Amino acid sequence: MSELRWDPLKLHWVIIATERGRRPRDFQVEPETGEVTSCPFCYGNEDKTPGEIFAIRPAGPPNSPNWRVRVIPNKYPALRIEGGLDSRGYGLYDVMNGIGAHEVIVETPDHHREMADLTPAEITDVLVAYRTRFLDLRRDMRFRYMVLFKNHGSRAGATLAHAHSQLIAVPLTPPVAATELKICREYYANKERCIVCDLIAFELASGDRVVREFTNFVILTPYASCFPFELRLYPKRHAHDFAQLDDAQLAELAVALKEMLLRLKTVLKDPPFNFILHTAPPQQQRLGKPEYWSSIEYDYHWHIELVPRLTQIAGFEWGTGFYINPTSPEDAAAFLREAEI
Amino acid sequence: MSELRWDPLKLHWVIIATERGRRPRDFQVEPETGEVTSCPFCYGNEDKTPGEIFAIRPAGPPNSPNWRVRVIPNKYPALRIEGGLDSRGYGLYDVMNGIGAHEVIVETPDHHREMADLTPAEITDVLVAYRTRFLDLRRDMRFRYMVLFKNHGSRAGATLAHAHSQLIAVPLTPPVAATELKICREYYANKERCIVCDLIAFELASGDRVVREFTNFVILTPYASCFPFELRLYPKRHAHDFAQLDDAQLAELAVALKEMLLRLKTVLKDPPFNFILHTAPPQQQRLGKPEYWSSIEYDYHWHIELVPRLTQIAGFEWGTGFYINPTSPEDAAAFLREAEI
Repeated sequence: MSELRWDPLKLHWVIIATERGRRPRDFQVEPETGEVTSCPFCYGNEDKTPGEIFAIRPAGPPNSPNWRVRVIPNKYPALRIEGGLDSRGYGLYDVMNGIGAHEVIVETPDHHREMADLTPAEITDVLVAYRTRFLDLRRDMRFRYMVLFKNHGSRAGATLAHAHSQLIAVPLTPPVAATELKICREYYANKERCIVCDLIAFELASGDRVVREFTNFVILTPYASCFPFELRLYPKRHAHDFAQLDDAQLAELAVALKEMLLRLKTVLKDPPFNFILHTAPPQQQRLGKPEYWSSIEYDYHWHIELVPRLTQIAGFEWGTGFYINPTSPEDAAAFLREAEI
Repeated sequence: MSELRWDPLKLHWVIIATERGRRPRDFQVEPETGEVTSCPFCYGNEDKTPGEIFAIRPAGPPNSPNWRVRVIPNKYPALRIEGGLDSRGYGLYDVMNGIGAHEVIVETPDHHREMADLTPAEITDVLVAYRTRFLDLRRDMRFRYMVLFKNHGSRAGATLAHAHSQLIAVPLTPPVAATELKICREYYANKERCIVCDLIAFELASGDRVVREFTNFVILTPYASCFPFELRLYPKRHAHDFAQLDDAQLAELAVALKEMLLRLKTVLKDPPFNFILHTAPPQQQRLGKPEYWSSIEYDYHWHIELVPRLTQIAGFEWGTGFYINPTSPEDAAAFLREAEI
């Protein structure tokens, strides 16, 4: 069982997941190259993964081939679904059991296609899988937040090359989400407007950081980007919850997401990246911390944040929380806008 | 001139340092290997760097060879010393000029020795250079904080292989420091004790996470370590300010620092790492934000934090602020304690 440990000096929780079993020599090993013959995410290797949780497949039984998207439990989960939190003190510290869910969404059966190469219809399938899993995990009252993210490339933390994303449900609101929720709530309390809607209006009027505008979505480089070619994909009309999108909206989002990934791949020659889906926490969990939820439908604006991993997070960044970005967001937006895809 | 930009959604400042000049193709390039012939930090190449700010050399004029430690301005500074902040608003954002100092401490003239290989006397020279620069930069009232850090290895962000550390003076208290200062102050306000002194007492009594104890220093793995083999080096007796250490104390610290680096190098086969010196901000700057300073001599405890860069910061970490650590701090401490150095 992994542990969640609290640092009273840093004010953060850390997941100590020793079942992933790293001894000193393990860190000498390079990331797996993901040879097709042994890749557990490939067609025909369905028995090499834990049993599937969800799949989109035209016909056939679970865990058989012939699927388009497949969701499985992570074989080496950071958090486990069984048990109680058992939160307790330990000296000046705090500790609780590592309870949560850790799932993998395999985006395509084809080992050689990454998400940017999929058709909008295929990406829509992936988004449907995301939505399905969000809605299902929300029924578990122990989970305060769900984090949907994708690591692409070994420098971005991917240990398998086959295209996949991950969904982790955590028993606490993470610090990044807590800050975002607080900012949105306070801005709304003062102005009765969504801060993200205001930012989008400002950015569309300026145009300097707009990469691409669609009818219902916009791709921007953030004004205070921490990293070169950082990107955000926003729905233009206010909406707090990704999981409430209907199929037609997911299909539109798939077009925008593909374009974001393809422009990045073209300009930077397939860079490593992470993207994270930021969406409102589940309705049911509102009971826990009422101060978060009074106006969330109006104050929170779901979106996708993408961070290419071109530069290292070094001593200065880790030691201060300040980031040094050598590429201006305006230049990055221009390069991405002008790319021929 | 670089810019400091404020993100009103993330509540952080970012340094946009475009003079470092990164266009898309620049990110294809691998880090420099630091060939000896062209290394600007080597003996005889003193004219390849900006003029030195400080050096320890037995005899001879500035910028001549025959030095032991040399401090120079960074050739590609993230922040520049000349000018005013000119803080101003821009839409929902804020921006100010990138004012600060960015110096490089070359730790040895020998290209092939890293800090762990230096003698305690040579490391003492490096620490004397750190102290000298801290005390000098504190005279500039524009700087709120100084960050002394070392990036070792390209995966830890080092662009030159030759052993060096960096000192950046910033015109704002960084978020990591602000949190640490606040925690220490609040704990002291409640208990009239230093939180770090209390943690050290708990850790010495437990022993589980102690790597090595000296007369006046102790090396620990933090209970809630974010990364495998994370380390902290603390003075056992309360002291808030590294820059007030005398020569004898620096010589004792050099012995402890060398041992920390050497144990890490031995167990993990010369891993990439960052270390950051956490010390109290300068006395003069107390005027700016009085709430930070009322009890800092009693509540703040200087120390060194070291983070090996064995695992990637991936989508989950970036998207949540939670870290997943696959090696327990107790196991890491045992491996480091038992290493034969």
